[in-house]
Amino acid sequence: MVKLRLSEIARRLEGRLLGPDRSVCAVAPLASAGPEDISFLAHPRHRKQLESSAAGAVLVQPVDAGRVRTSAVVVDDPYLAFARVARWLNPEPPLEPGIHPSAVVDPGAQVHPEAQVGPLAVIEAQACIGPGTFVGPGCIIGAGARVGADCRLLAQVTLCRGVVLGDRVRVHPGAVIGADGFGFARGPEGWEKIPQVGGVRIGDDCEIGAGCTIDRGALEDTVLEAGVKLDNLVQVAHNVRIGAHTVIAAQTGIAGSTHIGRNCMIGGQVGCNGHLTIADGVTLTGQAMVTKSIREPGVYSSGLPAEKNRLWRRQVARFRRLDQLEDRLARLEARIEEKE
Amino acid sequence: MVKLRLSEIARRLEGRLLGPDRSVCAVAPLASAGPEDISFLAHPRHRKQLESSAAGAVLVQPVDAGRVRTSAVVVDDPYLAFARVARWLNPEPPLEPGIHPSAVVDPGAQVHPEAQVGPLAVIEAQACIGPGTFVGPGCIIGAGARVGADCRLLAQVTLCRGVVLGDRVRVHPGAVIGADGFGFARGPEGWEKIPQVGGVRIGDDCEIGAGCTIDRGALEDTVLEAGVKLDNLVQVAHNVRIGAHTVIAAQTGIAGSTHIGRNCMIGGQVGCNGHLTIADGVTLTGQAMVTKSIREPGVYSSGLPAEKNRLWRRQVARFRRLDQLEDRLARLEARIEEKE
Amino acid sequence: MVKLRLSEIARRLEGRLLGPDRSVCAVAPLASAGPEDISFLAHPRHRKQLESSAAGAVLVQPVDAGRVRTSAVVVDDPYLAFARVARWLNPEPPLEPGIHPSAVVDPGAQVHPEAQVGPLAVIEAQACIGPGTFVGPGCIIGAGARVGADCRLLAQVTLCRGVVLGDRVRVHPGAVIGADGFGFARGPEGWEKIPQVGGVRIGDDCEIGAGCTIDRGALEDTVLEAGVKLDNLVQVAHNVRIGAHTVIAAQTGIAGSTHIGRNCMIGGQVGCNGHLTIADGVTLTGQAMVTKSIREPGVYSSGLPAEKNRLWRRQVARFRRLDQLEDRLARLEARIEEKE
Repeated sequence: MVKLRLSEIARRLEGRLLGPDRSVCAVAPLASAGPEDISFLAHPRHRKQLESSAAGAVLVQPVDAGRVRTSAVVVDDPYLAFARVARWLNPEPPLEPGIHPSAVVDPGAQVHPEAQVGPLAVIEAQACIGPGTFVGPGCIIGAGARVGADCRLLAQVTLCRGVVLGDRVRVHPGAVIGADGFGFARGPEGWEKIPQVGGVRIGDDCEIGAGCTIDRGALEDTVLEAGVKLDNLVQVAHNVRIGAHTVIAAQTGIAGSTHIGRNCMIGGQVGCNGHLTIADGVTLTGQAMVTKSIREPGVYSSGLPAEKNRLWRRQVARFRRLDQLEDRLARLEARIEEKE
Repeated sequence: MVKLRLSEIARRLEGRLLGPDRSVCAVAPLASAGPEDISFLAHPRHRKQLESSAAGAVLVQPVDAGRVRTSAVVVDDPYLAFARVARWLNPEPPLEPGIHPSAVVDPGAQVHPEAQVGPLAVIEAQACIGPGTFVGPGCIIGAGARVGADCRLLAQVTLCRGVVLGDRVRVHPGAVIGADGFGFARGPEGWEKIPQVGGVRIGDDCEIGAGCTIDRGALEDTVLEAGVKLDNLVQVAHNVRIGAHTVIAAQTGIAGSTHIGRNCMIGGQVGCNGHLTIADGVTLTGQAMVTKSIREPGVYSSGLPAEKNRLWRRQVARFRRLDQLEDRLARLEARIEEKE
Repeated sequence: MVKLRLSEIARRLEGRLLGPDRSVCAVAPLASAGPEDISFLAHPRHRKQLESSAAGAVLVQPVDAGRVRTSAVVVDDPYLAFARVARWLNPEPPLEPGIHPSAVVDPGAQVHPEAQVGPLAVIEAQACIGPGTFVGPGCIIGAGARVGADCRLLAQVTLCRGVVLGDRVRVHPGAVIGADGFGFARGPEGWEKIPQVGGVRIGDDCEIGAGCTIDRGALEDTVLEAGVKLDNLVQVAHNVRIGAHTVIAAQTGIAGSTHIGRNCMIGGQVGCNGHLTIADGVTLTGQAMVTKSIREPGVYSSGLPAEKNRLWRRQVARFRRLDQLEDRLARLEARIEEKE
């Protein structure tokens, strides 16, 4: 277990320690933290918890420093500081380089000697695994796929042939990268398959959630730029391009050839039509239905929040009568016009 | 093949047999059942099928007993009775305790001698598998994970490190339990990962559908209480809590830290925002968009049912003109007011 | 690498070659194609690209033949022609028949000698794999499942017990076919499981996307007819029937016992309630919420496109005031009526 002294934490964060120095070994929320834990106050609504918290130390902004009854580490951004302290106290388990004897590695594959390949993983011909990378149990790395340095493919990840991952990419279990895009042409006897000959390129520092599906391009590549973070069960269709540092919450789907800008924040269960362009800095709230390109940054939304079923039924009925409502209003206007 | 006499079925169900006793060996719908099948009438709309059905026996409520032309087993709740008879006639295949030679079991793992571990499963260090539990082919049980008694992990299930399952939990293929929650803090050079140090606890008698993703907590645990049933492709984010006996249909997503009550019924493709509280006994219909806490039991809905595209286009246009409609109405009101 | 002469392509397509004959070895979009590539013009909006394209040849309709500055292959349907040329230039890699030594094949399974079973696949008792079929790495073929000829199960596919696939079926990684349907009866102490004793039948020439879940039937089978194409993460519940040549985009869910017609086109994130009938030839646009049967072919839609958040908030508020609006209008009408 890692222990860190508060003075050391303050030093690394370029923050200021108020109160006694001591060691902490875990991060915890204010409400449940004990004397060996460090907590944080990221939002004023939790200020009251400062009084009752038994935390050994709290990461706070300068404005809250006076309220802390125990030790405080004063920083500009307590949430970011918390992320870092949490990483220092919970380091990734060190790799045990080498290939598990149960893994099946093609003789034509290149696995860096400082990489670790877990049990029952498959690495096909010409695939290439970089140093410091972990290919977890049950992962399948298709022919010619290239995984950079210091990646974590946690378990049961499938990279199809030729997929390219940058460095420090983290892929959660069940994700499938590089399956065929959904491309068919209508023929006389049914749909005819269009071979998907593009690839997938995932930039450095991306994180891909459990069960995500990122399809290979039809002719050119599907691309995630650096620092993109996908939550679970996100669907990225062929030839989509997602700009750097964009984050996408769970179950969202991006249809084919849509280009999403940088630094976007996309909520859960959002649907984007194909062949759109979404500008940098766009926020889409959950379940938004995006049918047209969005050219300006800002927050965009759609959908109607849930109501009691009885009320909802009436609303739906009224919605369907909107045309009548407009007609009635127009008739009234005409009658009054007439009179005047 | 299991056979049961109707008298035995009636006895176990504490029901009443009308008509000749005989053996049945399968459950079947009224329309296709034959003389060796037992069927059921759970809804009055299928009553007419009683006349034409060739079923060897029918489970019915007392009110329908007179309509059955073959043998009837009269019970209070034919649908529940059907579930039980179906289980008696289709028992789970018995386990073949032991570890398949192709499975990779860490020497530090504990597999109960009455458990069965299928081919090419991986059981990591300190993991613990209870008696009567089946770990199917290709499953991965992470370090320190604990699976109770009489569970069924059917195939390709991933339990990440430290995940805890109760007894009699059933997990369908492709489900991923305990992947990292989606937690990042914005730093000067992109999103910085917040280690997800909480776990996942799944109560007794839960069922988790194919492809579900249940993330581990950020600081504390994600929890499913006893008897929760998830359909396929359901997303449960970090620190969600789902109350006992709540059922959730496919493709629904529950965002982080939301607490769902007991005995809720949640439809498919529902989206719940994070940090909400949903009371016990709430029903949400399919595709509902839940943006606020729901404090009272009842049925809640949102969304607009599909219409012919041409009509829908007009409705959308009218919806966008609602503000003008309100303005026009206000002007009319003012004019009339003026005149009077 | 495959090379084809344009004259040969024209011959196979029953088209007409204009301009010099030459060899091409790849398909590419007009904008990036080089002299060894063949491109296509499927939509008039890309006509301008014909002038600047460096493609060695272009597939065009007769009307565009005069605009091509390089060689043209003139056909009636350039997109369909492109699909075929792409397949000729990118043939499936030939199978290497046989069973990888790391695969676990039950002695009671039947694997055709012309089938290929990849590393770490599992084939259970009584399963049957047809000639020319590829069972990729990490696939699990449950007991008694039957896979026809010339299928491709790419990787990590799970077919549960007894599932039946026709010929030339393509299943992408992570798909789960034949998990239990979501069936429970409410009992005195919680939900009681209803054994799902039906199966799944997938017709010839179907394609099943990555991460799809197709549940087995409760009593009878879940059925996909020939030529059905499912994109990724599609949920097909128990006893659903999908008619021939219907295509379904990603993340759509079809609830239990719904029957979908032939030649339907269903967008992404659509939700269909259970026990509905959708006619042949129905198109549903993305995110449509289908709550009633659709008896006539045509295009159906629902949902409100995303707007700027501020505007959306006002629209939601107005939507909630629709009842007041109707009341105010009715009062005005009454007042005017009164006066006259």
